[in-house]
Amino acid sequence: MKVETTLWWDARGNCIRYIDQTLLPNEYKIGECRDIERWATAIRRLEVRGAPALGVAGGYGVALASVLADEESFSRFMDKVRRDGEYLRATRPTAINLGWGIDRVLGRMAVEASIPAARLAAIAEAEEIAREDTECCHAIGDFGASLLPDNCTVMTHCNAGALACSSWGTALGVIRSAVKRGKEVKVIACETRPLLQGARLTAWELDRDGIDVTVITDSMAAHVLRTRKIDAVIVGADRITRDAVFNKIGTYGHAISAKHHGIPFYVAAPRSTFDPVNGEKDVIIEERKRDEVTTLGQRIFVPPGAGVLNFGFDATPIDLVTAVVTECGVFRPPIDIKALLSRPAVK
Amino acid sequence: MKVETTLWWDARGNCIRYIDQTLLPNEYKIGECRDIERWATAIRRLEVRGAPALGVAGGYGVALASVLADEESFSRFMDKVRRDGEYLRATRPTAINLGWGIDRVLGRMAVEASIPAARLAAIAEAEEIAREDTECCHAIGDFGASLLPDNCTVMTHCNAGALACSSWGTALGVIRSAVKRGKEVKVIACETRPLLQGARLTAWELDRDGIDVTVITDSMAAHVLRTRKIDAVIVGADRITRDAVFNKIGTYGHAISAKHHGIPFYVAAPRSTFDPVNGEKDVIIEERKRDEVTTLGQRIFVPPGAGVLNFGFDATPIDLVTAVVTECGVFRPPIDIKALLSRPAVK
Repeated sequence: MKVETTLWWDARGNCIRYIDQTLLPNEYKIGECRDIERWATAIRRLEVRGAPALGVAGGYGVALASVLADEESFSRFMDKVRRDGEYLRATRPTAINLGWGIDRVLGRMAVEASIPAARLAAIAEAEEIAREDTECCHAIGDFGASLLPDNCTVMTHCNAGALACSSWGTALGVIRSAVKRGKEVKVIACETRPLLQGARLTAWELDRDGIDVTVITDSMAAHVLRTRKIDAVIVGADRITRDAVFNKIGTYGHAISAKHHGIPFYVAAPRSTFDPVNGEKDVIIEERKRDEVTTLGQRIFVPPGAGVLNFGFDATPIDLVTAVVTECGVFRPPIDIKALLSRPAVK
Repeated sequence: MKVETTLWWDARGNCIRYIDQTLLPNEYKIGECRDIERWATAIRRLEVRGAPALGVAGGYGVALASVLADEESFSRFMDKVRRDGEYLRATRPTAINLGWGIDRVLGRMAVEASIPAARLAAIAEAEEIAREDTECCHAIGDFGASLLPDNCTVMTHCNAGALACSSWGTALGVIRSAVKRGKEVKVIACETRPLLQGARLTAWELDRDGIDVTVITDSMAAHVLRTRKIDAVIVGADRITRDAVFNKIGTYGHAISAKHHGIPFYVAAPRSTFDPVNGEKDVIIEERKRDEVTTLGQRIFVPPGAGVLNFGFDATPIDLVTAVVTECGVFRPPIDIKALLSRPAVK
């Protein structure tokens, strides 16, 4: 399997390197980023996206901020890095992982005694987040693989793959782990309008792995669930509260359809996705720009007089979820998030 | 209201004239067609589309065939016209109206005694189909308008508007009639992938009418049904059997979501859409070309190694439908199709 590493720290160049996901599947380009404003733009433009990858992106963003900050006193240096962290956090309001990665690296830096030590600690901590994320994905994959029968067909939405994480993937990690165990798995990838991450990214990375993948428009999902033998729907998550799973817009409709057809609906996500504090009502659903819906390439296909809504995410009530697959095992709702988060970390 | 006439017979030019719907909303162009092969292409490419409009297109297609056929004996002339009719019928297998319009004009021609009389009869009958279709749409609109409360928001899918009919529209006819009665109606138009008839056509014609319309991706429908006050979902139909409503792919998912949220799901369609003979199992769901899903403008966004499914329609089991609005009134399932079809025609 040609599983990708989505983003990493380039120690020689002192910069972040990453696969620019806006160019896939037509162009495979490694971007490099040496400035915070540009990194915020990369996150906003979804050059890097996917909840677990955003955790890593937050960590590397703080590491980059620490390398760039040239204040002389430690407290001013930390203030500058924290301000950059807040700036990055504001780019994407729904996914919890971005802020989690930022806070984790800031916390690690704060205990250091000098600016050089804090910089080294920031880079090391961000790399540790990436390493743990890959490990998490493999653990999620191993637990989730048991849920998939041999010779199965699984539907997924958006991209919860290697490209959404440091590597391997959450929902696609489950599929990869099942395939690695010798199971035959076919995948139906919903294209995921407006930005087509399913068609562009999920199809691309599964095809590179030699896993059978078929793209459908989101509008075909219910028909396919009714007329083909689909064994499970499996998606990632951007935030899981006690009452809802926030994930890419379109997830909720698939969850309703899965329930209507008696098909299990699984969410695969690391524990960093869980929000022990907020409920659905407290979470802002990101609304994005009109032109993501109205324009593709050079072509505008919505008349200027029509309104447009562009929600980035939706909330699926937790009772529509059959189980959440984490790096600590498979949990069926209701889930005690505080208990889950207090379990010992994966080794 | 700037309600369109979608296609008509040009008596001076002896040809069919029609709005080329593939170019909207960016270009408003009246096409003309003088040959059967080209008319089949226009239907296949969806330059003309929408179930009731296809009935009219079938009628005008036979009229055009009659004008072009230069056989000298009446029986050979009719054979040629019938062959052209069969050729046109095969362009779109799911919508019942196309074949219905073809058969109706062929039947009318067959009782004539001479070729010139048969030609005149074909044109007159096709024009009569168009006239009746407009009348039907107004009757559907009047019956359906009573179902919509004042100050309501209605979700629709694809284009069941003036452009899908001779004029006025079925689902959008209901909305137009409600607005004409002084009700305030806002419309959520699902974009309708892959060919975006909701974004391109529904938004265009409602915007021209001054009716408030907001476009969403199909993937946002369930979220909007859950989080906004949506009073009804209303769609057209391509074929209604005793057990299912065939309509544009994506309709079925909306029907499941509407039921899940306790929102009425209405189908608006003339009686020519009903199939008294076949059940769901007997109807072929048109599968269309890969590139409609993978390509928009010049851009291909599905990797070549990935499979693609492209269903043109889906089947919604009739028990998910709250009511069907026809030119004879509003019918709640189960519907006795034979009784409905044997009612006297609208005057």
